[in-house]
Amino acid sequence: MAADRKRLAEQLRLYLICGEGDTPDEVLRKTAAALEGGVTAVQLRVKSWTGRECYNTALALKDLCHAHGAALLVNDRLDIALAAGADGVHLGQKDLPVGAARQIAGPDFIIGGTARTPELAREAQRLGADYIGCGAAFGTATKDDAVVIGPEGIKEVLAAVEIPSVAIGGIELANVSRLAGCRCSGISLSGAVMRAADPREAAKALMREIDKSFGC
Amino acid sequence: MAADRKRLAEQLRLYLICGEGDTPDEVLRKTAAALEGGVTAVQLRVKSWTGRECYNTALALKDLCHAHGAALLVNDRLDIALAAGADGVHLGQKDLPVGAARQIAGPDFIIGGTARTPELAREAQRLGADYIGCGAAFGTATKDDAVVIGPEGIKEVLAAVEIPSVAIGGIELANVSRLAGCRCSGISLSGAVMRAADPREAAKALMREIDKSFGC
Repeated sequence: MAADRKRLAEQLRLYLICGEGDTPDEVLRKTAAALEGGVTAVQLRVKSWTGRECYNTALALKDLCHAHGAALLVNDRLDIALAAGADGVHLGQKDLPVGAARQIAGPDFIIGGTARTPELAREAQRLGADYIGCGAAFGTATKDDAVVIGPEGIKEVLAAVEIPSVAIGGIELANVSRLAGCRCSGISLSGAVMRAADPREAAKALMREIDKSFGC
Repeated sequence: MAADRKRLAEQLRLYLICGEGDTPDEVLRKTAAALEGGVTAVQLRVKSWTGRECYNTALALKDLCHAHGAALLVNDRLDIALAAGADGVHLGQKDLPVGAARQIAGPDFIIGGTARTPELAREAQRLGADYIGCGAAFGTATKDDAVVIGPEGIKEVLAAVEIPSVAIGGIELANVSRLAGCRCSGISLSGAVMRAADPREAAKALMREIDKSFGC
């Protein structure tokens, strides 16, 4: 298990969330570029697409991700994650519960939970989450209902669990270094890559900054 | 298999679609009444609710349905159907593909497909659908993008397959009798029960009309 956690922690180093605000074609084009730039995991997160659009895009993303040694996860839709052969599912507090997902997915499928308090983090770990998404790290325009807990808050939440983690929420090139020392395995973001003029260069610059701030 | 199909055909006799336009509490209250009125299957269909709301409502609906000997199905969300212990999933042409769902769900889970042409009906049957939803039977305000094929069109589509079926689209008490002879195992509707002043009495009246039109 310790070895699996170490591998998962490495996969979470630069975790791109894509989907919302882009068409399926745009998602594939930008994500392909971001993977060339060094992204280590991709999460497809769409609430407004049809199930079929999400499934077809997940199928194509899986091939892209695996060609680059990156992991693919799907937000909320465990059925689509399983049907498309993704590596895992990410579950927010308003999604399918972690425990219910684990019963369907079996022990080897990656399940990510979301927590902004030590209690929620422990609960997610207890129910079978393999990693935690923790934030919001900073203020953000993408999820305007997110409560900002900051790097210190993230450090406190992550001290409550042993599983790997990503910091999330308002992270961009300029503030990555502020997350050094907050115990997260990596960072998760969307806009800083998906809204960049050049997603490949944006991902490369973020990876350099992560290496510098978190160590290689 | 023939025995299973006969049982499924009986379960499809009065198939209520609920969710859209109601809150979770309203869905539970109205569906409980409709089950007392004789509804034989319930499909939870929601696009705008969170995954957690849909899961929690499906859990409660399962108990209600099973207490009345009715089947519970969930639209599109196979993961929620499985996690909540529902009897099946219903898949439209824009949802997860039938074949992909069958691979995850195993052989005993009910999978419904949607078809408005003989070709789509045969395809759904070939991919592993247990029944077909076929329509639109009549014009409807609920799904305004639906193509109306009428009772004659439904008869033609259902002649292409052996699996059970429900007619769908704009069905209400006044037009049930027009579906006699179109080969469907039952009828599927939403508004005629969920928008009725008394869902229990509406379901009872529909069951009487089905018995009269389709035979007991």
